[in-house]
Amino acid sequence: MDARPDAIAADSTSGKFRGSFDGAKVLVTGGLGFIGSNLALRLVDLGAEVTLVDALLPDYGGNRFNIARIADRVTVDLSDIRDERNMQSRIEGQDFLFNLAGQTSHIDSMRDPRQDMEINVRAQLSIVEACRLFNPSIRVVYASTRQIYGKPRYLPVDEEHPLDPVDVNGINKLAGEMYHLLYAKVHELAMSTLRLTNTYGPRMRVRDDRQTFLGTWIQRILSGRPLRIFGDGLQRRDFNYVDDVVDALLLSAAAPAALGKIYNLGSGEVVDLATLARQMVEIHGDGEVELVEFPADRKRIDIGDYYGDCGLIERELGWAPQVDLATGLRASLEYFGEYREHYWP
Amino acid sequence: MDARPDAIAADSTSGKFRGSFDGAKVLVTGGLGFIGSNLALRLVDLGAEVTLVDALLPDYGGNRFNIARIADRVTVDLSDIRDERNMQSRIEGQDFLFNLAGQTSHIDSMRDPRQDMEINVRAQLSIVEACRLFNPSIRVVYASTRQIYGKPRYLPVDEEHPLDPVDVNGINKLAGEMYHLLYAKVHELAMSTLRLTNTYGPRMRVRDDRQTFLGTWIQRILSGRPLRIFGDGLQRRDFNYVDDVVDALLLSAAAPAALGKIYNLGSGEVVDLATLARQMVEIHGDGEVELVEFPADRKRIDIGDYYGDCGLIERELGWAPQVDLATGLRASLEYFGEYREHYWP
Repeated sequence: MDARPDAIAADSTSGKFRGSFDGAKVLVTGGLGFIGSNLALRLVDLGAEVTLVDALLPDYGGNRFNIARIADRVTVDLSDIRDERNMQSRIEGQDFLFNLAGQTSHIDSMRDPRQDMEINVRAQLSIVEACRLFNPSIRVVYASTRQIYGKPRYLPVDEEHPLDPVDVNGINKLAGEMYHLLYAKVHELAMSTLRLTNTYGPRMRVRDDRQTFLGTWIQRILSGRPLRIFGDGLQRRDFNYVDDVVDALLLSAAAPAALGKIYNLGSGEVVDLATLARQMVEIHGDGEVELVEFPADRKRIDIGDYYGDCGLIERELGWAPQVDLATGLRASLEYFGEYREHYWP
Repeated sequence: MDARPDAIAADSTSGKFRGSFDGAKVLVTGGLGFIGSNLALRLVDLGAEVTLVDALLPDYGGNRFNIARIADRVTVDLSDIRDERNMQSRIEGQDFLFNLAGQTSHIDSMRDPRQDMEINVRAQLSIVEACRLFNPSIRVVYASTRQIYGKPRYLPVDEEHPLDPVDVNGINKLAGEMYHLLYAKVHELAMSTLRLTNTYGPRMRVRDDRQTFLGTWIQRILSGRPLRIFGDGLQRRDFNYVDDVVDALLLSAAAPAALGKIYNLGSGEVVDLATLARQMVEIHGDGEVELVEFPADRKRIDIGDYYGDCGLIERELGWAPQVDLATGLRASLEYFGEYREHYWP
C-alpha cells in the first residue's frame, strides 16, 4: 500500500504547504470519497490532524478502502452532513474545513431532486451557519462545480460566464456556493470556492455511470468490456487529475489571496470523448469503443462542449495542472488494476 | 368595501383577460398577502374560481382583511406551502397557479436563513415537483425578485445582468426561480417567471420595516410620525403600483409567449428616496422626513441604486405600467387612511 503509484504531483508541491498544515486540525467532509480521500492522504503526509466526515451513502463516492493507507492516522466520523448538531460539534475547534461532501450525480438530481437539495443546499447552509456561530476563524474551501454555468455560451468558460444550470444539481450547487461567498462577504468568514471540472484518478467512483463516464470507462476497459460513448463522441471536455485538484484545494486554503474568491479549475488539454476513449485503449493496450444513442434523460441535461479557463487561479495562486492526460490515465488504470476488488464486484 | 379606491388600472386591462380566467380554477399561494390578495380580487372579478393558500405566518404579509370584499367567493386554505402533501392535493385539478408565497424580508433572511431556505427553496422544489407529478398541464407564474441581481453593475438592470445576490433571500429566491425555469425546459411544464422590483399599494404590509421601507413610511405618515431614510436618501429605485403587477401576472399566465420566460418588471419613473419621501409628504399634505444612519446589518446587504429595464415584457407581452407614482401613492394613502385599523395597532 505504500508504493502509491498515483502520487505523481505530490512531491513537487508538498513543500509549499508544509508550514500551513503541519499540526493543523483539518476537517474534510466527503472525506472517504474520491477527492476527499486523496486530499486526506496528502494532509496526513503534511502532518495535519485530520477528521473525515462521510456518511458512506450507497451510490455516492465514499469507500473505506480509499484511506486504507492512513486509516490508523485519521479520525473517521460516519455521520451525514445533514446532521446539524454533529456538524456543529465537528466544526468547533478546527483550523481548516475542506467542504467536499455533496450529491454529485446530475442524473440522480433529476430523479430525486429533494435529496440533492437536502445535501447541496440545506446541509451547506447549516455548515456555513455552524462556522459563523461556532468557529468564525475557520478557513473553509468549498468544492463547487462547472455545472453551475450550464451550457457554455462561449469557450473556454471563465468565472464571469453567466450562471444558467441545466439540472437540479447545478441549481443546488450554485446555492451552496453562494452561501459560502455570502458568508465570506457579509460575516467576514475565511471562505474560498473552487469550481471543479471533470476530475479523475485513483479512488474515483467507477462502479457505474451515475457520476462520471470516465470512471465507468476505467471499470469497463479493465473488465474487457467496450467503452460506451453517448452520441457522436465529439463533445469536448477538460479533465484534471486528482493530485492537481488536491494541490488547488491546499493552495486555496493556504493563500490569503483566495479569501472570498471563486476560481475555475481546468486544463489546457481539451479533448473530445472519442479521442479520449481511443487514448485510453492505447494506454491500456487493448479495448474497444462503441457509440451508443444518447439516453433521452441524459440528453435533456447535457451541456455539450465544455472547457474552462483556469487563468485566474494561475495568475493569483500560481496553480497550474502538472499531470497530463496520458500520465494521469496511466496512473488511474494502474491503480484500479491493482485494487479493483475494492471498487467493483 | 365595494368602492375600491385602489382599482385604478383594472378597468383598462380586464378585457384582455376575461377569456383566459372566466370559469378557470386558479390557485394563489400567498393569497392573503399583498400581491396575492390584489390578484385574487381581480381574478374573482374576471370570473375565476379562486383558492388562496396562506399560512398567515406572523411578520409575513398575510392579512384576512385583504380579501374582505371577496371572502365569500374564494376558498381559503390556511396551510403552509411547506406542507408537501397539502400542496400536492391543492395543485391537482387547477388550471393556473400563481406562486407568490415567500419569505420576502432581506434582513430576516440573514437573521433566520434556515426559514428563508425552507420557504423559498425547499417548498418551491416541492411545488414544481407536485406540478410535474400531479398536474403537468397547469399554467404557473412564479414571482421572483430583482434581489437576485445583487448590487447592479449597470443601470437599468436587464434580464441578462449577472446574478450575484447579496443576501440569503436573494440566493434562495434564485434557486426557487431556477427550479421553475428548469422544470419548464426539461419537463416541458408551462411556467413563467417575473422578477419584481419594489411593489407598493393597497394591502401591502405596513406594520414595520421588515419588508419594505415604503410600507413603513405609509404607516408613519398616517400616524403623524416622520419618514425615516437610511443614509443620504440619494439611493434611486423604481416602483410598481400593485395593479400593474397584477396585470403583468395575468398577462404572463395568459400569453403563450411567456412560456419558460423570465421578465423584469420595473418603471421608467426612477426616483431617489429623499424625493420620494418629499413627494409623499406633499400628497399627504403634511409630514416630516429625517435622515438616519444606515444600520450596520442593513448596510451590509444594501444594493445601492437599482432600477430595472422592463423593455422585454413590454415588447413581448405588451405590458407597461399604467399608474404613475403620484397616482399610486395617493391611492395607497387613501386606502390605508380608510382601513388603518386592519393594518397596524
